[in-house]
Amino acid sequence: MDYKGRLERARAEVAKGRLDALLITHLPNVRYLCGFSGSAGVLVVSEEKALFFTDGRYREQACEEVRGVTIRIIKGKSALAAATDWLSQQKPFRRLGFEAQHLTVAERSTLARSLRRGTSLIQAPPMLERLRMTKDSDEIARIRAACQLGIELFSRISKLVRPGVRETEIAGELEFAARKAGVEQMSFPTIVAGGSRSALPHGRASTARIAPGFVLCDFGVILAGYCSDMSRTVYVGRASTEARRAYGAVRGAQQAALDAVTPGAAVGAVDYAARKYLNKNSLGRFFTHSTGHGLGLEIHEAPRLAAGLSEVLRPGMVITIEPGVYLPGKFGVRIEDTVVVTETGYEILTLCSKELLEI
Amino acid sequence: MDYKGRLERARAEVAKGRLDALLITHLPNVRYLCGFSGSAGVLVVSEEKALFFTDGRYREQACEEVRGVTIRIIKGKSALAAATDWLSQQKPFRRLGFEAQHLTVAERSTLARSLRRGTSLIQAPPMLERLRMTKDSDEIARIRAACQLGIELFSRISKLVRPGVRETEIAGELEFAARKAGVEQMSFPTIVAGGSRSALPHGRASTARIAPGFVLCDFGVILAGYCSDMSRTVYVGRASTEARRAYGAVRGAQQAALDAVTPGAAVGAVDYAARKYLNKNSLGRFFTHSTGHGLGLEIHEAPRLAAGLSEVLRPGMVITIEPGVYLPGKFGVRIEDTVVVTETGYEILTLCSKELLEI
Repeated sequence: MDYKGRLERARAEVAKGRLDALLITHLPNVRYLCGFSGSAGVLVVSEEKALFFTDGRYREQACEEVRGVTIRIIKGKSALAAATDWLSQQKPFRRLGFEAQHLTVAERSTLARSLRRGTSLIQAPPMLERLRMTKDSDEIARIRAACQLGIELFSRISKLVRPGVRETEIAGELEFAARKAGVEQMSFPTIVAGGSRSALPHGRASTARIAPGFVLCDFGVILAGYCSDMSRTVYVGRASTEARRAYGAVRGAQQAALDAVTPGAAVGAVDYAARKYLNKNSLGRFFTHSTGHGLGLEIHEAPRLAAGLSEVLRPGMVITIEPGVYLPGKFGVRIEDTVVVTETGYEILTLCSKELLEI
Repeated sequence: MDYKGRLERARAEVAKGRLDALLITHLPNVRYLCGFSGSAGVLVVSEEKALFFTDGRYREQACEEVRGVTIRIIKGKSALAAATDWLSQQKPFRRLGFEAQHLTVAERSTLARSLRRGTSLIQAPPMLERLRMTKDSDEIARIRAACQLGIELFSRISKLVRPGVRETEIAGELEFAARKAGVEQMSFPTIVAGGSRSALPHGRASTARIAPGFVLCDFGVILAGYCSDMSRTVYVGRASTEARRAYGAVRGAQQAALDAVTPGAAVGAVDYAARKYLNKNSLGRFFTHSTGHGLGLEIHEAPRLAAGLSEVLRPGMVITIEPGVYLPGKFGVRIEDTVVVTETGYEILTLCSKELLEI
């Protein structure tokens, strides 16, 4: 991983934001810049310095993982308290930026009380999140590997879907196979939702038993720090005309959105393409969420692909395309791929069949 | 669950804090008060009103789960945006409290911009966290069930520990069995750390293979919303005198801390009991974390059992007692139980053998 290049680019952002230093408290941003994967760590980056603070539990792990920055641990102090201590002992940074979306009001108050006179705390925009939006080749390789594993896992568990099996059993088999393949953690609580539960866009696997009807599966793995994300919806039994029509409409909407993915396109236009297709099929009002999101070290990253947003797609962005329709009390269908934006269009990283599978 | 009683007690806290309303953004606090288990929800509680806000994805789930409060969803708005909208349309609450530890600086800024004149935003202390510190009988029953399952899972996976097996395979089997038993999610990334990795207090299961030496297992399940937490350390092969001595010292320290658990005792005294025992055995400097923490809807809740803290134990508190020693590059040992504070002392909820198990 190109930690050196990332730190340089982060410093350029800090300078552009007219900050003398940036306090980085969001762990994925910390990991992005220096490689630390533990659950407690803070970075301070200025033009000349780059320090990483953690607590005693992570001494060995920090030495093993952290690259390109100085490690500081103060016995008995949390990472943020250690960083605050250090900041209060320096010649004050005149304008100290902090991540407003990743510092609580209480933490800010504590920090402000400890700083020396002469330092102003400045709400920084999501600088690191903007850098992270475009992935480098190492990152794309990791996301690709995670997605590849996702495909294999889905092919395995789709064989387990049958009437009478509990949703949690399917999710459990999936997660177990993922673990055996070296997965650190799932990227989010696995969704396996059968029958009318498929109409819950976030229907985590429950102890309900699979019955004839749609089964919506949405899951992701974290492999070497990077997330995958994919959804497929299968049908247990023979699909009715209504079900078949809905599935076809979602599939068409997904393809329409994919067709809109190209460098220079606004994210809102990709969302609009899916929405327009579902509207034409009189299902638009059942598409109750946005079309997709970026992913990488986190399962939800910038950009969001939602109505009206003007962020522009660039090569190296990795996004999901996941329209769905949810008919309350009846059924839901979602089809989702993870794709990388290329110089000429897109490449699907979760490439596997989207034909309606009847089981 | 006694949502009505909880809401009453929350209102009493709000009044005691001289607040006209409290904006509750911490999801476990939301769940505690109204039952909602999804990933996006906000409560506003005043003397007369109690409203729950979520977004469109959770319409059905909210109707199913939420009790005792009014549900509001505004199409296309996040839970916090919907709550902010509502607040800006009311006769202003003069003093509106918010959870300073659970609202980011950016969220506070957005909220402040939208509120009508006449409302002051007040940093509220952790009111709900204080209420949640003492568990009611329904909660203890759920934690007990989670701990009971933890015991069964440990007994099953301890049979899998043998040279050559990967740590992730053991963790995977554990999590798979947990899933099949109806577990929603693990309470934290499962720790299975063999050999010198056992010296990492937070050594998540890796792809390393088990070799002769200590294997530290620390895991928890979430069952019906409530967490369990336990650690056991086993030895693969015949333990050396040094290993045996360290194990005995940690076990003695854990018992010393347990002996100090009684209503009216300060949490610092419990921590001190463990620390003193390890000091006497010349291992104190390898005990690099605190003795324990509360748990319930979250894996880490108040109180913290750390040096010098004066919080007093009360019947109904559920805490972990988990001293450990970590000899860098060599090995680590931790023994952890979840216990409930009773009228006369404590009851161990993760009751199973702590004899040194040689495999």
